[in-house]
Amino acid sequence: MINLTILGCHSATPRANAFPTAQYLEINNKHFLIDCGEGTQRQMRKYKVGFSKINHIFISHLHGDHYYGLVGLLSTYGMLSREKEMHIYGPKGIQKATMQMLKISESHAKFNMVFHELTSKESELIYEDDKVTVTTIPLNHRVYTNGYLFKEKEKPRKLNMLNISGYPEIDKADYLNIKAGRDITLTSGEVVPNKSLTLDPPKPLSYAFCSDTSYKPDIVPIIKDVDLLYHESTFLADRQDLAKKTKHSTSIEAAKIAKDASAKELILGHFSGRYPDTTVFQKEAKTVFDNVSLAKPGAKFTLK
Amino acid sequence: MINLTILGCHSATPRANAFPTAQYLEINNKHFLIDCGEGTQRQMRKYKVGFSKINHIFISHLHGDHYYGLVGLLSTYGMLSREKEMHIYGPKGIQKATMQMLKISESHAKFNMVFHELTSKESELIYEDDKVTVTTIPLNHRVYTNGYLFKEKEKPRKLNMLNISGYPEIDKADYLNIKAGRDITLTSGEVVPNKSLTLDPPKPLSYAFCSDTSYKPDIVPIIKDVDLLYHESTFLADRQDLAKKTKHSTSIEAAKIAKDASAKELILGHFSGRYPDTTVFQKEAKTVFDNVSLAKPGAKFTLK
Repeated sequence: MINLTILGCHSATPRANAFPTAQYLEINNKHFLIDCGEGTQRQMRKYKVGFSKINHIFISHLHGDHYYGLVGLLSTYGMLSREKEMHIYGPKGIQKATMQMLKISESHAKFNMVFHELTSKESELIYEDDKVTVTTIPLNHRVYTNGYLFKEKEKPRKLNMLNISGYPEIDKADYLNIKAGRDITLTSGEVVPNKSLTLDPPKPLSYAFCSDTSYKPDIVPIIKDVDLLYHESTFLADRQDLAKKTKHSTSIEAAKIAKDASAKELILGHFSGRYPDTTVFQKEAKTVFDNVSLAKPGAKFTLK
Repeated sequence: MINLTILGCHSATPRANAFPTAQYLEINNKHFLIDCGEGTQRQMRKYKVGFSKINHIFISHLHGDHYYGLVGLLSTYGMLSREKEMHIYGPKGIQKATMQMLKISESHAKFNMVFHELTSKESELIYEDDKVTVTTIPLNHRVYTNGYLFKEKEKPRKLNMLNISGYPEIDKADYLNIKAGRDITLTSGEVVPNKSLTLDPPKPLSYAFCSDTSYKPDIVPIIKDVDLLYHESTFLADRQDLAKKTKHSTSIEAAKIAKDASAKELILGHFSGRYPDTTVFQKEAKTVFDNVSLAKPGAKFTLK
């Protein structure tokens, strides 16, 4: 299952009702924070994100609107007497700047901060546990930037109890073998194929976070068939010139990426403050790709 | 005239409706920002503070809840194409940490940031122009901390046009001498004393910002007769032990300072999250000092 909560989704400077990028992702019962603009911890409180569940933070790039909330959040974790390790993934340099700011405030945390500094321009697997993998999506912005692809791992096949009950000879002791994908040979010599004893597991779900970036079609193979795609769309097509200059995308470009990757659903975000009504982004993207949603603070996206 | 806007006034960690310390002060037509916790720029937008009016920022100490919004604010000034110098006053170390964070984000500001790093444990005059002075108030906290005393300068005496019209001999050419405080000698030899030709100017107003600090009665002479005093009161008297341990004040202690300094009005703030209803601070302080207000985001205090 995927549960994505948008904490902030506007570009550049915070405004009264515009919050810079931050997202809280629950995937296969793992909990991640993606980007951490100024004020993220306040948004986490507002939308009731459990602070203690998060053990991994992924920062796309070191522009303030994606990163300036990190030091305050880590400082708060210190005040909350956190003891668990916190893993922070982000561009090279993130450790030094963050630690200096914490040091000058004499924020003495009991917990260990483990920084994983990224430098590769190729997509790489940076996180793996029993349930989830996280892979970088190299993006093209004014500074070194990665998107992140979160994928559920293939789940084991489930026992088809109805079919199994048709073979009284098959015992509980066999279940482990069946779950592991093995066929069962009966005493008669008959081989019961695994497929008839098991059900297909739910298809693993995936979520791709792509911000900030200019239009970069070579990410399509990395995110191919993704279930949920967040792609920045700072501008509409009317400001293609500005998008190119600032290395951002338009809603049309985001929709093209979604279409070419055969994504199931596209979420647009990172809207420029010049567009007070964000529904125009959706309208424009829908001319290219049908299933488009808009990010807004507090919005939740659930896939089962 | 003094116009004080509270942007944030809660201690420690930001919460959905609790914002860390920041204040916007207009005094004698000069505009200052005092402290800059995370999210201050968003609060400035919310309460319609004119960003471009501010040329001087005073940071009391480098704990996150008073300082972690500075780098984002400076970065925003860069995006707003600011060109005027920005002066930043705060403890030694503020420049290096701030500039490193800006550098890593490749925030290229056109404007010059002039850092005035403070190290003295004695009260010192750190700012003076034609209208205002700013003096430090050395406080006692877990890290090096200063409060700030903002004072209007004595204004020139005003012409008493009614009395002047009684002396037809006195000409416009004399007005400059009269404003400068000089007596006028008539051709008859009669000396008209300056006092009868002028009106007293309005009394200069003053504002003292005292946060964070343990009870420190030796600040009383520095802020004697202050018109408006903001003093932190993180705890009530029931947690005197915690106040002492964390070097904060109780509302009773803040009220004692106000009383001993003969302040005209006391504003309490920096409330601990353990007290959901802040009116208890006012009630308790009133047992010692009568004119007590409570800080809250968006609250304005005006003195004329």
